Amino acid sequence: MNLPIPSPMASDTSAFAAGAAYVDGVYMPLSEARIPVTDWGYRRSDVVYDVVSVWDGSFFRIDDHLKRFRASMEFSRLVPAESDDDIRAILHKLVALAGLREAYVAMDCVRGRPAPGTQYHPKNARPYLIAYAIPFIWLMKPEIIERGAHMVIASTPRIPESSVNARAKNFHWADMTAALFEADEQGADNPILLDAAGNVTEGPGYNVFCITNGVVATPDRNVLGGITRLSVIELCAELGLPCEVRDVSVEELRDADEILVSSTAGGPIGVSRLDGRILNNDRPGPLTQKLRETYWEKRKQGWHGEPVDYTTV
Amino acid sequence: MNLPIPSPMASDTSAFAAGAAYVDGVYMPLSEARIPVTDWGYRRSDVVYDVVSVWDGSFFRIDDHLKRFRASMEFSRLVPAESDDDIRAILHKLVALAGLREAYVAMDCVRGRPAPGTQYHPKNARPYLIAYAIPFIWLMKPEIIERGAHMVIASTPRIPESSVNARAKNFHWADMTAALFEADEQGADNPILLDAAGNVTEGPGYNVFCITNGVVATPDRNVLGGITRLSVIELCAELGLPCEVRDVSVEELRDADEILVSSTAGGPIGVSRLDGRILNNDRPGPLTQKLRETYWEKRKQGWHGEPVDYTTV
Repeated sequence: MNLPIPSPMASDTSAFAAGAAYVDGVYMPLSEARIPVTDWGYRRSDVVYDVVSVWDGSFFRIDDHLKRFRASMEFSRLVPAESDDDIRAILHKLVALAGLREAYVAMDCVRGRPAPGTQYHPKNARPYLIAYAIPFIWLMKPEIIERGAHMVIASTPRIPESSVNARAKNFHWADMTAALFEADEQGADNPILLDAAGNVTEGPGYNVFCITNGVVATPDRNVLGGITRLSVIELCAELGLPCEVRDVSVEELRDADEILVSSTAGGPIGVSRLDGRILNNDRPGPLTQKLRETYWEKRKQGWHGEPVDYTTV
Repeated sequence: MNLPIPSPMASDTSAFAAGAAYVDGVYMPLSEARIPVTDWGYRRSDVVYDVVSVWDGSFFRIDDHLKRFRASMEFSRLVPAESDDDIRAILHKLVALAGLREAYVAMDCVRGRPAPGTQYHPKNARPYLIAYAIPFIWLMKPEIIERGAHMVIASTPRIPESSVNARAKNFHWADMTAALFEADEQGADNPILLDAAGNVTEGPGYNVFCITNGVVATPDRNVLGGITRLSVIELCAELGLPCEVRDVSVEELRDADEILVSSTAGGPIGVSRLDGRILNNDRPGPLTQKLRETYWEKRKQGWHGEPVDYTTV
């Protein structure tokens, strides 16, 4: 029999299979999405971003992500041409182009470039939008999520929010990168960073919770206002677990009954070791497991979901 | 008469006239030099860099820049394929390709990308080198350098070196960017940032000096180890000016007889206003002018110079 001839649409789709991108008004395969080395988005890390997940064909809390992304842009005086509705439509189209049911969907606003030869000032550039959809990435390998993450307290303190606003989601990660190397050297999976006063902040890509005597606590300063963090706080209310949003000292974390982290790249994830200490018989704790199961159960039921419009391509 | 026909070499040169770049082993016109949006060099600002100047066909202190660049890379565990001798040869070739007698020459080492679908950890990427040469850019417009810069003390504190090592030259500039907007709002040219304790640090692209009763002082903590800063310290010794490298409080800066900044993009530059205060009859101070004149006089004489090898292309 004759081989089937790929239709133009199928051919287009395969070019986008590894990921679909949008750069300043133009859709392209992810492999073609690049920014100039002279763009201040790279050259001064003058950029804010957000990441929303798609699971089983539905965006999770896309309204919250768009609202946070806009707040990050406004804080940093980054104004792209696209409205929130435009961005929503772009994200739908990217997931549809990539043909993904489960996706990691990023959106960045970069500063752009001043005219050649001019002095550097951010006001002289034209900010623009970058976005892309790729297959879903888990924060950690599934087997690590299963057994619980092994964490260390990093010696590098988190950049204070007085210098860089952690709530305007940004790429100032040198402290996180140093902490990832620290964790690796100690044979651990991931780090938790403290502030200069010894309070818990966050880790690379996640917020941190601890549970002591049935009370959940998560820090409020020097942290991103995580959407999954918000979801965990909502789940605590639903499950009748008191949840306190306040300073959490490193001592409280070290003595906690359970520790978990929250991330768009995986939801609530349990911690089974912190430095030398083994928690919950080396497994995620029971309340952590309950939060995790409830999170995924509710997502399957469409909680805060917006179905991807796959008809846009 | 017939118009002259451009030779292939002249044609090649014109493609590089706006700037010549090198990205991971390949030379190209600057306009083609881009990095993937998924590269951690952009996406986590996991990158260190350096900038060396060329004036009148000579690199200035290229050995010091290469040494500092290597120290920045080692601190951040970024190991590109190229040796220091390779990088030196690349920089010479870029300036020759661009055909520049006066140039701003940048070199970056970015983290690279992990394999698609893998979890983020910097150890899983292959770092690589980016470099480019463009026409020399002055830190400020020449007329501002002439009349003296108008500076403000920024309310945003500099990222502390406990979180991000300022000596490993990096793009963590959100504090600097915020400070540039602050200066602009106050009708000033540029900002000076303090640390959390109220000591002077640096500004976007420059170190800071003050002069009181003939004694020069410059901070040593939370600052880049500037090559032009080092040059000013050497010039002070040559001119018989005592120069102290130590904490400088904001009060000392506010009361100083003279203030100057130092940058690869212009050498020593005088400050004529700080917040509401007018210094030296609204002009750069006399010792500042002496330092500036001596700096440029010595550069013309080949001080710390290495002539560009224009025969490499």
